[in-house]
Amino acid sequence: MDFYIFSDEYFMEEAIKEAKAAEEEGEVPIGAVVVWKKKIIARSHNMTERLNDVTAHAEMLAITAATNYIGGKYLKGCTLYVTIEPCPMCASALAWAQLGKIVFGAHDPKHGYSLISSSLLHPQTVITSGIREKECASIMSEFFKKRRI
Amino acid sequence: MDFYIFSDEYFMEEAIKEAKAAEEEGEVPIGAVVVWKKKIIARSHNMTERLNDVTAHAEMLAITAATNYIGGKYLKGCTLYVTIEPCPMCASALAWAQLGKIVFGAHDPKHGYSLISSSLLHPQTVITSGIREKECASIMSEFFKKRRI
Repeated sequence: MDFYIFSDEYFMEEAIKEAKAAEEEGEVPIGAVVVWKKKIIARSHNMTERLNDVTAHAEMLAITAATNYIGGKYLKGCTLYVTIEPCPMCASALAWAQLGKIVFGAHDPKHGYSLISSSLLHPQTVITSGIREKECASIMSEFFKKRRI
Repeated sequence: MDFYIFSDEYFMEEAIKEAKAAEEEGEVPIGAVVVWKKKIIARSHNMTERLNDVTAHAEMLAITAATNYIGGKYLKGCTLYVTIEPCPMCASALAWAQLGKIVFGAHDPKHGYSLISSSLLHPQTVITSGIREKECASIMSEFFKKRRI
């Protein structure tokens, strides 16, 4: 599959690679990248098992890595690409970081922030969803299907 | 001021010491301790400035430290004492950690989780508030008053 470079699909492909890396490690397969000035400045995936830490979601690790790169606490000029809709913890963290834009693949029907309130996000953050939705959702559903066997 | 040992007031005093340590470091003065089997297993305070990380709230650091101590990802048998009502990010993180009990000092009229929804917390988490409320609130209001001068 080819994508126009710097398109949402292009960067979501990088987040999907992270989700697949998580899957190989036995982690819930959610991946994220942070883009600044058309450049990926942070890559991450869920590490709750490896770090033994429920807060080690892809988005939380991405925020920390991106702010380390930029050297400031805020990410106003950045876009986060994440394969699955952020949970309320991550949505609120993204609000504290004042993310410029969030692009997510598939909605999370169990833990998505939108189940609680869209006001968890920063009012100036632009949201796009549905980018490579089926593939992002499928990585998750296949993972949990295998674990139930 | 004397407190009966192992009372909520006693452990909140320890959280207040953490809040004051934060204040001395120029951090937003919020402190927390995690108690397990009547023992403090984690102490923390806001470190967003030092770590240059908006996610470095006292509660987030306390969860990570407490799970490191326990060696498990969940804190069902633990109580978190925190001087100020958790924000939505921290409330959701405490839900993921399945905290047994949360005791907070003063409500946060700007950023408290209860402004969004009490369902951000885990349904089985017991909540107590108002422990040493005035002192906890005063540490915050004095801090911001000084910064506005």
